[in-house]
Amino acid sequence: MEALPLTSIERLSLNQITTDRWSLREAAEGCVRANIPWIACWRHKVAEGGLKESARIVREAGLRVSSLCRGGMFPAATAEERAKRIDDNRRAIEEAAELGTDVLVLVCGPAPDKDIAAARRMVEEGIEQLVPYAEQCGVRLGIEPLHPMYAAERSVINTLAQANDIAERYRPDQVGVVVDAFHVWWDPELYPQIARASGRILGFHVSDWIVPTPDLLMGRGMMGDGVIDLRRIRKAVEDAGYAGPIEVEIFNQAIWDMPGDDALALTKERYLQHV
Amino acid sequence: MEALPLTSIERLSLNQITTDRWSLREAAEGCVRANIPWIACWRHKVAEGGLKESARIVREAGLRVSSLCRGGMFPAATAEERAKRIDDNRRAIEEAAELGTDVLVLVCGPAPDKDIAAARRMVEEGIEQLVPYAEQCGVRLGIEPLHPMYAAERSVINTLAQANDIAERYRPDQVGVVVDAFHVWWDPELYPQIARASGRILGFHVSDWIVPTPDLLMGRGMMGDGVIDLRRIRKAVEDAGYAGPIEVEIFNQAIWDMPGDDALALTKERYLQHV
Repeated sequence: MEALPLTSIERLSLNQITTDRWSLREAAEGCVRANIPWIACWRHKVAEGGLKESARIVREAGLRVSSLCRGGMFPAATAEERAKRIDDNRRAIEEAAELGTDVLVLVCGPAPDKDIAAARRMVEEGIEQLVPYAEQCGVRLGIEPLHPMYAAERSVINTLAQANDIAERYRPDQVGVVVDAFHVWWDPELYPQIARASGRILGFHVSDWIVPTPDLLMGRGMMGDGVIDLRRIRKAVEDAGYAGPIEVEIFNQAIWDMPGDDALALTKERYLQHV
Repeated sequence: MEALPLTSIERLSLNQITTDRWSLREAAEGCVRANIPWIACWRHKVAEGGLKESARIVREAGLRVSSLCRGGMFPAATAEERAKRIDDNRRAIEEAAELGTDVLVLVCGPAPDKDIAAARRMVEEGIEQLVPYAEQCGVRLGIEPLHPMYAAERSVINTLAQANDIAERYRPDQVGVVVDAFHVWWDPELYPQIARASGRILGFHVSDWIVPTPDLLMGRGMMGDGVIDLRRIRKAVEDAGYAGPIEVEIFNQAIWDMPGDDALALTKERYLQHV
């Protein structure tokens, strides 16, 4: 069955990296002006304004927080450094709870050397260590597979199959997966793996893959400007039981250079047209 | 068991894109000066000098041709255009035979629209149509999975699993796979899929993945300058029965800007150190 277009923005969440020039306060005020009900926060933006104040800002704006970006970055060359990363993840969990979201997005980190298999085991061990504290804080860990082009610099978890393999060791209220269309659209196993993630999808992120692709990091496009069949992926995610917020997360200099209100207006328009 | 370093360059093949400023004649002469026994040709370079003349050049230089790059590019919006692509692939097969190689590398092509699954079926249909003529000409079709970051622009075949799925429909003397470390190093299924390809690996290509990655196309590095565990991958490919030429294929402006003889000297040094 064909997926129907969304008819409202009630599930739309602004991932605040999309308006990178804005502080969290500015992004929250922008969402209020645009009637966008959800926001996703980044830790460095939260830190800028202070955690308590950031939590107050989003609460008083009446916004719901879809997720906090990001925990993870588990692999490191020494046990001492890996332990530091776990500590930092515990802080991230506390921040998520304070901000009022129950989803911490995990960008799992690159390998410290050429042994990608060992780094993948470090990710598994890191998650294993975090789960009890996350549960205690009421925060679920969302493993976000990143596109394979980020395997050397950002994450050795590059397919939904890998994320599912890890998540399935836990209860869905402990660990799940985050489906970001930009990262997974190319995957021949995409639809079976989305179905497999049923009941433990903790987030759905949209943007687009533009052609020609200008840059590894900053080449994401606004929905509709690229080749991703976003609606088909949304339908699959919904068929797998996900009915939560849909984050728009775009790293793109041209969009960052737009006045923030214009970027939000375009986001809403394209969300209804293409997601 | 640890893989041992290579002790000679008897399996080294210069993929001529590594010395992009050189014509085929210049590349052949460079290989002779450097005692590199193999060369891999690109069709546009062969066309520049003319097919018969190109075949004569490599033959008289005493070089063996490891492969011809590239056939493929099967998906297209219309049946007419797809038929044209098949015709062009038939020419590529003839050129491979004339050049004295029995391997045509297939870069399978991007989708003409947002339906990547349909494009993947077009690839399967294209290969199906080519096999009889390739066999008649004594040329094997080598499906080269390309890194997922090229899914929108160069190939919808992005994992060795996909390549194996298609290749296994044919005999190993008809269709096989080409393992290019740059394209597949990140894949969690890499080693099982190399083992699965046993008996039908038609080529092994090396370069490196440099960090930070400067560019999608031109960011490949010389072996040893990046994070790929080339020796481990070579061992896996050899354990799967491949003992043929190892192509060095590097798209990198700094290497292209080097004097060709210097690039070959560096290639030989790094090949023995890192492959």
